[in-house]
Amino acid sequence: MRGAFLYAPGDVRVEERDDPKIIEPSDAIIRLSATCVCGSDLWPYRGIEAVEGPSPMGHEYVGIVQDVGSQVTNVKPGQFVVGSFFASDNTCPICQAGYQSSCLHRQPIGAIGAQAEYLRVPLADGTLVATPDIPSDDLIPSFLAASDVLGTGWFGAVAAEAGPGRSVAVVGDGGVGLLAVLAARKLGAERIIAMSRHEPRQRLAIEFGATEIVTERGDAGVARIKELTGGLGAHSVVEAVGTQESMLQAIRSTRPGGHVGYVGVAHGVELPGTELFFSHVHLHGGPAPVRRFLPELIDLIWTRQIDPGTVFDLSLPLEQAAEGYRAMDERRAIKTLLRP
Amino acid sequence: MRGAFLYAPGDVRVEERDDPKIIEPSDAIIRLSATCVCGSDLWPYRGIEAVEGPSPMGHEYVGIVQDVGSQVTNVKPGQFVVGSFFASDNTCPICQAGYQSSCLHRQPIGAIGAQAEYLRVPLADGTLVATPDIPSDDLIPSFLAASDVLGTGWFGAVAAEAGPGRSVAVVGDGGVGLLAVLAARKLGAERIIAMSRHEPRQRLAIEFGATEIVTERGDAGVARIKELTGGLGAHSVVEAVGTQESMLQAIRSTRPGGHVGYVGVAHGVELPGTELFFSHVHLHGGPAPVRRFLPELIDLIWTRQIDPGTVFDLSLPLEQAAEGYRAMDERRAIKTLLRP
Repeated sequence: MRGAFLYAPGDVRVEERDDPKIIEPSDAIIRLSATCVCGSDLWPYRGIEAVEGPSPMGHEYVGIVQDVGSQVTNVKPGQFVVGSFFASDNTCPICQAGYQSSCLHRQPIGAIGAQAEYLRVPLADGTLVATPDIPSDDLIPSFLAASDVLGTGWFGAVAAEAGPGRSVAVVGDGGVGLLAVLAARKLGAERIIAMSRHEPRQRLAIEFGATEIVTERGDAGVARIKELTGGLGAHSVVEAVGTQESMLQAIRSTRPGGHVGYVGVAHGVELPGTELFFSHVHLHGGPAPVRRFLPELIDLIWTRQIDPGTVFDLSLPLEQAAEGYRAMDERRAIKTLLRP
Repeated sequence: MRGAFLYAPGDVRVEERDDPKIIEPSDAIIRLSATCVCGSDLWPYRGIEAVEGPSPMGHEYVGIVQDVGSQVTNVKPGQFVVGSFFASDNTCPICQAGYQSSCLHRQPIGAIGAQAEYLRVPLADGTLVATPDIPSDDLIPSFLAASDVLGTGWFGAVAAEAGPGRSVAVVGDGGVGLLAVLAARKLGAERIIAMSRHEPRQRLAIEFGATEIVTERGDAGVARIKELTGGLGAHSVVEAVGTQESMLQAIRSTRPGGHVGYVGVAHGVELPGTELFFSHVHLHGGPAPVRRFLPELIDLIWTRQIDPGTVFDLSLPLEQAAEGYRAMDERRAIKTLLRP
């Protein structure tokens, strides 16, 4: 089969690799209907994370089950399934508490590589969720979004306790930030402030439910959020970037007693303890336990209550993965869907 | 009147100072029945926080109302009252959300100095809570504890979401940590692990409801907590010290999805973003909004359901404040009560 590898910063190649096979009796093999490039794939692509030789890439996936191991009972060949970027058993105490991305037996899909034609999914029973039937093609991008970018934005909004009567601000206008806007809306927030200075992203933010756009950043951005919230700061702030600046911007935009939900993978972040102490915010986040939300998200998509798939503004054949990365790196695309 | 001043690290003096007077119509003057030395007073006493000339000290207080300004309606002369270390209006949106220590109009009592015979309390209506009647002398230490050390431990336990079915660990065996044990017990936690290597403090922790004592610190302490909690870490961890080591110990002792309540005033703390991200913990804390809890704490003390006053293991006349600081600094005393 064909699959994408990152050889070095900026060097993505699609090459022949072995078809995956069942290794463990809890595995499933799926034929991918769609996969995509993640904002977090850009960290190694940009050389900010180390790249060690040719690494298989990709951890977002939807597809048709081809084969299952002898222990798999929850999904069967022929079903259309959605999974997440950590395989999880969904039975350990951490999974049961809703933190499947910290499952005691978790396995990162990124190390296996979902930017490919086929994928071996470990712990299939705990990881994959089937849709009610094979979806029509137009729904596939939305189900793919559920696999990570929507699931992560959703967790950000949940961690920030977005909901009725609460003002929400979102730091970061990548796919995750934009879908955190959608999540906040769906969770009942009436007032959602998206921080973005890019016109196409502003437009999508408004489509997803943002009521205000703030173009300022850093201290000026914080000042503007405070101005819009009676001098107090927002009740709920989603951080969807992962830099020192964006974390501080999120914390400082939150009122005392408010909640920061942070889902941008932290890079070079050191939080000043004294400032955090006196900020009085709640801080929660990390790798999104997407599995927790999949049944609900699949239902919302299946019944066409949400349309997160519009976050993909570039769709390419898998063979052109390199261009997909480049377009996102140069911010020409918000998020690239790859068709295997 | 007499009042304590910190002149320089290690140099506490009790000297004559002017009797306080009503300045604002929202002020009250109280005659202090008892005051005390706080763990946080030790930061400047040890020179870790800067000391600028002679500073009035103390921010924990109970006493009898002597005089009130023209706008004060909630308390009246002759009543026994408990206040907290930040005066707050208790009406602004931040107070209404339960974060009175971040009140938009907050005033630090420490800058006025409660280690004295009399105290001017700003924003008396929002700050002071009267007891049902004048308490008997034996209850005074417990009401004094409510003013900060109990209120802060309580907030730590609430921020850590201690409660039924949850394992709780407490990092720090000062007064706040010990009373966080009491709070966790009262909030319904059945399993409470106190981290302490000092025998008298271990004894008090057990008296307050600790079910286990861990003497190890740092990585060994974390390993021991994990061992005691099925390899997962505690659901709820209260941090009551404020150093880098204690914060990391608290975060690392918490299971993914668990809650860290941190109430030790942060000194020199820098939280590593990547570790925090992957820890999956909830982090909440800061200066305790004691006012939120005062009505409940006063009721629990008045009805003798809790006896937090035993945290004072040294009681001295105000004149001997210097010895009170010294005893705490040298860990000869857990907490010193001062009788004006």
